[in-house]
This record gives sequence, structure tokens and C-alpha cells, in this order.
Amino acid sequence: MSEMKKWYESEGEHSDVVISTRIRLARNLNGYPFPHLMNQAQRKEVSEKVRDALIGGNSALRDRFRYLEAEKLSPVELASLAGRHLISPEFANDPKGRALLLMDDESVCIMINEEDHVRIQVMGSGMQLKEAYDMADKIDTVLDETLHFAFDEELGYLTACPTNLGTGMRASVMLHLPASEADGTLRRVAASLGKVGATIRGSYGEGSRSTGAMYQISNQVTLGISEKDTLANLTDITNQIISLEKKSRGQLLSGESYQDTVWRALGILKTARVMNSGEFAELYSALRVGVAEGLVKGITLGQLSEAYESVQPARLMEQFGEEMNAAQRDRKRAEILRGLFRSTDIA
Amino acid sequence: MSEMKKWYESEGEHSDVVISTRIRLARNLNGYPFPHLMNQAQRKEVSEKVRDALIGGNSALRDRFRYLEAEKLSPVELASLAGRHLISPEFANDPKGRALLLMDDESVCIMINEEDHVRIQVMGSGMQLKEAYDMADKIDTVLDETLHFAFDEELGYLTACPTNLGTGMRASVMLHLPASEADGTLRRVAASLGKVGATIRGSYGEGSRSTGAMYQISNQVTLGISEKDTLANLTDITNQIISLEKKSRGQLLSGESYQDTVWRALGILKTARVMNSGEFAELYSALRVGVAEGLVKGITLGQLSEAYESVQPARLMEQFGEEMNAAQRDRKRAEILRGLFRSTDIA
Repeated sequence: MSEMKKWYESEGEHSDVVISTRIRLARNLNGYPFPHLMNQAQRKEVSEKVRDALIGGNSALRDRFRYLEAEKLSPVELASLAGRHLISPEFANDPKGRALLLMDDESVCIMINEEDHVRIQVMGSGMQLKEAYDMADKIDTVLDETLHFAFDEELGYLTACPTNLGTGMRASVMLHLPASEADGTLRRVAASLGKVGATIRGSYGEGSRSTGAMYQISNQVTLGISEKDTLANLTDITNQIISLEKKSRGQLLSGESYQDTVWRALGILKTARVMNSGEFAELYSALRVGVAEGLVKGITLGQLSEAYESVQPARLMEQFGEEMNAAQRDRKRAEILRGLFRSTDIA
Repeated sequence: MSEMKKWYESEGEHSDVVISTRIRLARNLNGYPFPHLMNQAQRKEVSEKVRDALIGGNSALRDRFRYLEAEKLSPVELASLAGRHLISPEFANDPKGRALLLMDDESVCIMINEEDHVRIQVMGSGMQLKEAYDMADKIDTVLDETLHFAFDEELGYLTACPTNLGTGMRASVMLHLPASEADGTLRRVAASLGKVGATIRGSYGEGSRSTGAMYQISNQVTLGISEKDTLANLTDITNQIISLEKKSRGQLLSGESYQDTVWRALGILKTARVMNSGEFAELYSALRVGVAEGLVKGITLGQLSEAYESVQPARLMEQFGEEMNAAQRDRKRAEILRGLFRSTDIA
């Protein structure tokens, strides 16, 4: 894809704990059934209307977007987009009549004809709830000028699934919580999140277990609450979890045992010839804490995130061809990681 | 102890597989009961007679030996000598009336009043059965001139335990056999060793399991066979095992999986903060194959052996004091290893 620096290659606020921020707005057009009931002609019409509303408009944003018809993308390209969380697995698995508008730095991706007609998604590195929302809101405004999204004065935005009714917004932060996971703090916090209108999930969406201590916190409620209050609430919760994690990290890193884990992770990343994605996630988690807490020097969190992205299965397939099997990917992953960590100093 | 370069710091023949060679001759003086039946006065008399026979004689060897009364050594010194296999654990545990004559490079250690009055032990790096035997024989001759060892024309040398009767010789080689252990070759070979008059044992003597794929092969029979034939037989057997191990290594290292194990071992040795002796033995084993087979460069087998010796528990205690507990040793071991492998290149 584009050679522009990607959003995840930079470091946002609280990047020692917050990996990334994501805002998603679900929107629908009046006069069309929801996507699962649309015929092919309607899908095409909606796709083109959304495309024209953004690219055909006169917003400064228009030159930064590319329009991609999903059916014209190869399975590897679709898998790669899904691997980078730009599109959902559902979108990738059934590209028929679907399209997307992708911003040059990949921080914005608009899915067309997924569950809703329009899903505006904005990603940011680190803690950027406000910035990401502002960008989503700006795009929403540009699109709404032409498309006049379905909106009810009582309910708010109308969506295919009632759980999104209202703001249509899902705001989330991806947090790295190895220390509070290890000492049990996270379990206690997770149990009380529901009461404050938030949910916690493993890194690959609902129901999935966390790998490498990555957890996504997001708002649970979209109805009867404003975007502003939702974001303020999620920011509060996130800040509390960050401060608990930092406290747990202090405890964890004061002992030699976790330092040992951190340094061994670097040693293995520098030397392994074969590495599967599960082991990588665990080593990455340990090393990230080491870098975030100043133990390991000579590599930034941004570079770490780049390394992380560069060895995800979809990315490896995209770079080296679809025919790679798991064993070949494990070798290629190890090779890339050795190169990336070659110059990271061992203290 | 002495600052002279120790025997294990050099590399002998076939050092890719043969760690070390050892010859032990059991001898006894006429006119004294065997050690377990001796009183303190007799023990002292025998000790001094042996000492004078070597140091008081006019052999060129005499200036290279130190005489040490075991009772005057600290528990840490005794443990360190035992850890380097210069004295037996039994000798170290019950030093009363015992003594030893230690050569400057530690390649010869004569235990006095262990199971027999005299046990001449000669160690060599790599495959040195002939050289080690020649040295043992030379010392035997010097001592015998004065001491006139108990000898029966029919039986040969008389020893405290009938299993040593005859030559009184135990010749052994310590072999590193990770590949033939892994692919099952060793199991087949071990089963047939008895038939050819040899035994195989783990690295810490009879009955012990092997750690890090170290195996000791030695002659089983001392009666009715000459020293020369014993050595020729053991040499044949060892050469066969070496060639099987080399074949297995070729097979093992052709796959990426063992290369992965080798390189990870180096990565962990370079970075770990805590390492127990069992883990070290396994990592050492993998790395030694890597160095022996030319995969890992920038470190010699001799340097590896030095590293091995330097982090044995007794050596750590000797260097850093007896009060070290296991956890402290594990930290110190990791620290020393990081230093030793810092400049070993990762390919």
C-alpha cells in the first residue's frame, strides 16, 4: 500500500500502557434497507454515494482517501487489512458489494456495507480518545452534508443492531496490562467495569482470550448518553487502569524474576530461528514492559509497535506471498525479528 | 589456588565430542590395612610416606606438586575440589587422616587414604587416553620405587574393593552426546557396551542421570586384561561412539529446529538474570554443539569449558563465599555468564 508513515509507527500519550485508541461511528442512509437486506444494485448505489460524499466533496480530507472495492481486492490483501484491524473479519470474508475508503496513513478507514451502511473508524497511537473522536466527527459531518444519515430525534442514529442505537459510537483503547494481569489487580477491576458502563476484552475481539496481556476497554452504552460523556467516562476509567498498571509494574520490576523474563525475551528475539505468533506475543509483552519502564534501552515503543505489526501473519503473507505455510511464517517471523532487534543493546 | 592455566582450559583431540579423559590407578602399600580399617596414626604414616615418595624423590615432577592435608582445608575448598572432580565426594565429606598431592595445572591429583591408600588420577582435555595413561604410569613408577605397592603375581595390584583388583585402573572418557541421545542411537549403543567390557554413566557418577547429554564411558574389567589392551578397547569403543554422534549431529543440525535451540541458548546465556545449574547444563549442551559444529563462531571449545567450570556451584561458593544460597548462586551464575558471552556474536 502507500509508503506514507502509518499511524501505528508513532507514539501517543501514555504509550507505556496504551497501545492504541479507536473510535467507530455507525451510520446509515435513509431510503435503503440495512446491508444484510440489500440487493447488489443497492449495495453499489450506497457505495458510490458514500464515495462521492467524501471524495467528490470539497473537504480538505478528500485527497487523502482512496476508494477500494472489496471484491477487487485479493484474499491476501483482505486478510492483511483485517490483520491491521482496518476491516472486520466479517467484511474480509464476504467482500461482495462492499467497499472501503482508506486514509493515506491508515488512521481512518470507512467500511461501506458492513453491518451498517457506513462505519467510520479512526485509529490513533496511544491515548487519543479526544483526537480520534474529533477526526471521526469531522468525517461524519462531511458525509452527513450529502448523505443525511438516518437519525431519530428521540433515539439518535439508527443502526442495524440495536446495541449501537443512539450515538452509534464505540470508543475503545487497547491496553497492555501484564503487571495488573499477573498480580490479580486486573481481575478485580474487570469485575467492576460493567457497573461503570465499560467492557473489557482480549485483543482479538469479543470472547477471545488475551494474548500477551493486551486488553481492549470500550464503552458499553450508546443510548441515552452523549458522545462527550461517553468519552469522559472512558477516559476516567482508562486513567485509573493505567495508574493501577503502573503501580503493579513498579512492584513486578522490583524483583529479579521479571527482569529476567524481560531480558530473556530480548535474547530470544535476537537469536531464535523459529517463532510462532503465540510465543512472539508473550515475548513482545515482556519486552514492551522492559522498554516502557526504561529497563531496555536503544529501542522506542514506536519501533516496538512497528516490529509487532511487521510480523503479524497477514502482514507476512502480504509481503511473502499467500502460499506461505505456518512453518514458513514462523521462520520468516524469526528472521525479521532477529534483524529488527540486532542492534538493541543487552545491558 | 594456583594461577597456572588449568588442564581443562585447553582443547584435546576430538574435543567436539570428547570433553575430557581420566585415568585412575588404585594402589596400596604393603604392611598397612586398607584405609577403612586404619587408625589415625597409620593414616598419618601412609600420607607422609606417599608425600615423601613423590616430593622427597628426585623425579622432575616433584616441584610441580603441592601436598595438602584434607583436614586443614575448609569445607568450601573441599567442595570446590570435589566439584572439579579432583577428589571424590566421599573424600570431601570425611577428610580425617586424608591428604592429596595436587599438580600445578590440576591435571594430576593423588588422593591418599580414600578407598585405597593411593589413587593416582590424571585428567586431560579431549581424547587423551594414551597421554593420560603415560603420565599416570610415570607417577606410579616414581611412587613404586619407594613404596613398593602391594602386588600379586597372579592377581595383579591388590585393592580394597575386588572390582579394582588387577590393573587397578579405571580409564574413562567424558563424552558430549546430545545428538545420539536425541535420535535414540545412544540407547542402542549403551545396551551393547557391557558385552565389550565398558560401562556408560551420567556425568555425576554411577546411577546418576545425565544432565546436558554428558556421558562417561569407562572400562568395566580390571582383572585378566592388560592396561594396554584396556586402553585399546576403550579407544575403539569411543571412536565408534564419536563417529555415531557426528553422524547424528549432521542429521540434527540439518533441521532448523536444533539450530533454533542452539541460537536461543546463546541468546538466553547473554541475557538471563537468574539461571539454575540444571538449565545451564541444558543450554551449555546446545551451545557446545553449535560451537563444535561451526555454527556459532567467536568462542572456542576451550573457552566454553572454562565458562562451564567457572559457574559450577562449588566454584561460585569458592569465589563468593560459602554463605551464598541457591538463589544468590543462580543470580551470580547468570551475571558471570552474561559477561562471558557478551562478545560472542549472534549470526
